[in-house]
Amino acid sequence: MTVTTPETVGATRGLPSLGPEGTRLLRLLDDTFEGWGLSAGARPMTMPPLLPAADLARLDYYDNFPHQAVLAAPLDLDRRLTTPFDEARGQWPAASLEPAGLGLPSASCYAVYLDHQGRQVADDTLVTICSWCFRKETHYEGMRRQLGFRMREVVALGTREHAEDHLAAFTARIESFAAAVGLTLRKEAACDPFFDKGGSKALLQRLTPVKHEFLYEDLAIASVNTHRNFFGDRCAITLGSGGPAFTSCVAFGLERWLSALTRRHGGWEAATRAVLDAAGPVT
Amino acid sequence: MTVTTPETVGATRGLPSLGPEGTRLLRLLDDTFEGWGLSAGARPMTMPPLLPAADLARLDYYDNFPHQAVLAAPLDLDRRLTTPFDEARGQWPAASLEPAGLGLPSASCYAVYLDHQGRQVADDTLVTICSWCFRKETHYEGMRRQLGFRMREVVALGTREHAEDHLAAFTARIESFAAAVGLTLRKEAACDPFFDKGGSKALLQRLTPVKHEFLYEDLAIASVNTHRNFFGDRCAITLGSGGPAFTSCVAFGLERWLSALTRRHGGWEAATRAVLDAAGPVT
Repeated sequence: MTVTTPETVGATRGLPSLGPEGTRLLRLLDDTFEGWGLSAGARPMTMPPLLPAADLARLDYYDNFPHQAVLAAPLDLDRRLTTPFDEARGQWPAASLEPAGLGLPSASCYAVYLDHQGRQVADDTLVTICSWCFRKETHYEGMRRQLGFRMREVVALGTREHAEDHLAAFTARIESFAAAVGLTLRKEAACDPFFDKGGSKALLQRLTPVKHEFLYEDLAIASVNTHRNFFGDRCAITLGSGGPAFTSCVAFGLERWLSALTRRHGGWEAATRAVLDAAGPVT
Repeated sequence: MTVTTPETVGATRGLPSLGPEGTRLLRLLDDTFEGWGLSAGARPMTMPPLLPAADLARLDYYDNFPHQAVLAAPLDLDRRLTTPFDEARGQWPAASLEPAGLGLPSASCYAVYLDHQGRQVADDTLVTICSWCFRKETHYEGMRRQLGFRMREVVALGTREHAEDHLAAFTARIESFAAAVGLTLRKEAACDPFFDKGGSKALLQRLTPVKHEFLYEDLAIASVNTHRNFFGDRCAITLGSGGPAFTSCVAFGLERWLSALTRRHGGWEAATRAVLDAAGPVT
């Protein structure tokens, strides 16, 4: 039997495991970011780990991100016998699968809009969640670029002003926290693939950016995103005053924070100490 | 646009979301069970959310559980154009997918054996993890039977005695904790589909059960499992004395604990209070 070392396999596939130090620091960071959400009045929720493909299609996901999309499909009990497991390539042929009615989410907030669909929300709604997210990439690299990674988000749903104020408040929190943990961040407007790059929406976006990223060196570790009333409209999320809700979200790529902090501080222990000193007691 | 209520969709598909109360109680329970592991000396780790299908195949997963298996497959950028999204059924045809090289895990501990493959472990190794697990079922039911659910495990790798002692110690902890939170549990030997039901291994298992479940009413909320040296052998996990490691694991189905506790106590608040009173301060 051939035995491969798990780190190599996992990192190459964008699926590394974390030992005690990484597990602890990720939790500490997540508790910190969640705590910011809670102190701002966010409802902590848990979203399903898979989303209906039909819902993602309705949100244009497969038009805008087809290269990143990963689906979940059950094994077909009959066809697995006629098109068996491909031992040489280590994979099930597509013909051995049932159709895929569920997708692996690429961002935590999609599930929040879907969870609120068809509902009226308060003008100042905030929700915070942390989910595993999945993006197929052309290559993977340690904790910097993973196929599966965790994203903590704090999502605003409500008036246009609420959505804008949310991003302004969290921009300030991110910048002061980064300074406190010794990370010099650069804020940059990003070309959000949420809109088709070739279309008129992309042009509009270059004129009025809807996504800003916070980069440590060349690595984006957080972002603030405004969606105008796109999700409110598509998911029929309404305000008491009538009309679709505006939404915005603040996203933290948790493994990327581990990457930045351990690179900056030279190891798990110093990185953890820096966060403990900066975060203070977690609520 | 047709709008469906998310609870119905999520629950029907085995993918409900949790509000603040459920999110909090699940975390409290998970912290409690993790704390038992830590106090016994377990390494807290984080495992990848997807596992190589070749590894799962090598562990006989697709022979023993083909009816539950769910695969992860990227969208094929060319074939999605020739076999497009099926709007009527809300699914991508299998022909629009790439082959599936990764599987969604059905239990948390598979990743632990794979993470340790080809390594020598100490005679008394313990690892604790919590992962999303996925099992296709013929029907789903609230927090009792989900397609995607969370499983906290405390896994023993080492000598036969270590694996046995681990289950004995955690059996006692489960029974006393259940009594403290007001759940009357029944311990039953289970027919573990880990072994082929029709084979000689199944016969052996009926003679010497390898899995015991703890049931509240008719719902299994925890289990203790011994695998002899099956995973140690298949994954080449060795002991200092030579020979494959023995393994065992204790598993907690976290949403099922929520189901049992809210049913027993009549709601989130009373259920949470019962756990807080029983668990004491979490380490």
